[in-house]
Amino acid sequence: MTLIRPSRRDVLKLAAVAPAFALPARASAQLGAPGSANPGYFNFSIGQARVTILSDGYFSLPTSGLGVNAPRDEVEAFLERHYQNPQQGYSHTNHLYVELGEARVLVDVGSGNRWFDSTGQLLANMQAAGIDPAGITHVVITHAHPDHIWGIRDDFDEPIFPDAQYFIGRAEYEYWMQDELVNKVAPEEQQFVLGAVNSITAEGLEWGLLTHDQEVAPGIRVIDTPGHTPGHQSVVVESDGKQLIALGDAMSHAYTNFAHPEWFNNFDADGAQTVATRQRLLDMAATDRMAVLGYHFPFPGVGHVMREGDAWRFVPALWQFG
Amino acid sequence: MTLIRPSRRDVLKLAAVAPAFALPARASAQLGAPGSANPGYFNFSIGQARVTILSDGYFSLPTSGLGVNAPRDEVEAFLERHYQNPQQGYSHTNHLYVELGEARVLVDVGSGNRWFDSTGQLLANMQAAGIDPAGITHVVITHAHPDHIWGIRDDFDEPIFPDAQYFIGRAEYEYWMQDELVNKVAPEEQQFVLGAVNSITAEGLEWGLLTHDQEVAPGIRVIDTPGHTPGHQSVVVESDGKQLIALGDAMSHAYTNFAHPEWFNNFDADGAQTVATRQRLLDMAATDRMAVLGYHFPFPGVGHVMREGDAWRFVPALWQFG
Repeated sequence: MTLIRPSRRDVLKLAAVAPAFALPARASAQLGAPGSANPGYFNFSIGQARVTILSDGYFSLPTSGLGVNAPRDEVEAFLERHYQNPQQGYSHTNHLYVELGEARVLVDVGSGNRWFDSTGQLLANMQAAGIDPAGITHVVITHAHPDHIWGIRDDFDEPIFPDAQYFIGRAEYEYWMQDELVNKVAPEEQQFVLGAVNSITAEGLEWGLLTHDQEVAPGIRVIDTPGHTPGHQSVVVESDGKQLIALGDAMSHAYTNFAHPEWFNNFDADGAQTVATRQRLLDMAATDRMAVLGYHFPFPGVGHVMREGDAWRFVPALWQFG
Repeated sequence: MTLIRPSRRDVLKLAAVAPAFALPARASAQLGAPGSANPGYFNFSIGQARVTILSDGYFSLPTSGLGVNAPRDEVEAFLERHYQNPQQGYSHTNHLYVELGEARVLVDVGSGNRWFDSTGQLLANMQAAGIDPAGITHVVITHAHPDHIWGIRDDFDEPIFPDAQYFIGRAEYEYWMQDELVNKVAPEEQQFVLGAVNSITAEGLEWGLLTHDQEVAPGIRVIDTPGHTPGHQSVVVESDGKQLIALGDAMSHAYTNFAHPEWFNNFDADGAQTVATRQRLLDMAATDRMAVLGYHFPFPGVGHVMREGDAWRFVPALWQFG
């Protein structure tokens, strides 16, 4: 595998990367906010793989970004019927951490202190779960959006996992690192570009660039799931014939994406491709009874895909104690 | 309200109360068992009420007890389709704890060390959630089955919440405390009777006997939900116009009871009455958008009731961090 150590470009050193959507976080569920925090980690296993879901926190964006190709009143009625706040979303951020063989693999690094006040909890939840950050051997980035990669550096600009090997899809890398992308995109997307490039080019990181079906470590591989971003990848854990797909943002909503896979969202770069990828993932997961993890699904975001007529339903995994 | 301080009967002092179903606990979910334990408490609010769901652990019984009035192959196919183990169940034990005004109310006391090895975790999870057992003012028992009441005494036969006021439905109390019940029931039910009577008659307890719609504390009342047992009651928390029903075992399965409310289980004392109570609860919760808590639903067992054609679907509540 080619390893890449990109250097920063002058234009980016000058750019201040401020949060793109620094809205106050608002609780949006039917039940009221908890008086004290709920735990942010969840353990289970896939064959020999010991898996922990680690939350980086949550954020809340208007639901106007959901189902942008569907009638607005239909989207709101759907959310209301499913006891979701029809106006304001509540996005979790569920990271896959897996111990399999010698590998200690983390998928995505969250947004650190560069996104919402209510995010940046990855390291705290890792500590609560009893996981040593220094033990992480591989970091796989599904795509270079703020909530998935901006936390790669700490407040002092140092990588938070300095000893890990970093991986990202070759197509994803090439998209964000292309010359002058920042001047080609719409003004409201420029912060995403600057943040992605600043994160990828963080000092001290060395990147492995991945193609479809490539293994990161024994039993852990990536698959191309483009649409949400041009080079988006999902991560598949396989052990003893059991499989889990960390979807990343190939699916981002546990209700709309299943009942209406044909609806896409404002952050999906290519709507039609997002829908095609999603249909393929849903069919595959239901047929092979693979577990799925949605980064933005309700915590812990792990479950299975049930066929329901022409569409699907997300069946959350059991919260097991033993 | 009449307060009752029952005394033990000689026959019961002699009876050894052994676990009725001391099967080894087996994990039954599609995902593997966690390598280390998952947290067993969950916080949220209902208006001014601060609510914590506390787990007493879990147990696993054969699914042959589910939907005993339905064709067996239909029940198994239904479970399989919903990614539930078709042969072996996994029952959580989700206790409602609520702080509202001056009241600190706990619903049911779990099974202590008298049921499965994997249950009896209530006090440990109370500690993990930062709740002081000595602060509990009211204990409400939904019904006198082992997993709901056998934990009322500790290993030294002392009540685990000595300073609380205890409540149970008058009809439930009168059913279990009737003369010679132990000699009227089938042999395999005798342990249930002995355990219920021994628990109700534990030294030092004083009982308030409740009727339909009676308040235990401001904003917290019971409603009659008979069928599972003759005097079964559910607990309603209401604050600022928001409501939560702690169903107890009026509903015991988050999939079968919603999609097939007409199916009843082997532990439902009166099948037809259980189904009638359930239909009424489902209709009420969906119409008024009340939250529900299922004692045996997948942890934390809180959610809402969505209409789906002629039946229903359980929509789990969001796991909120803030």
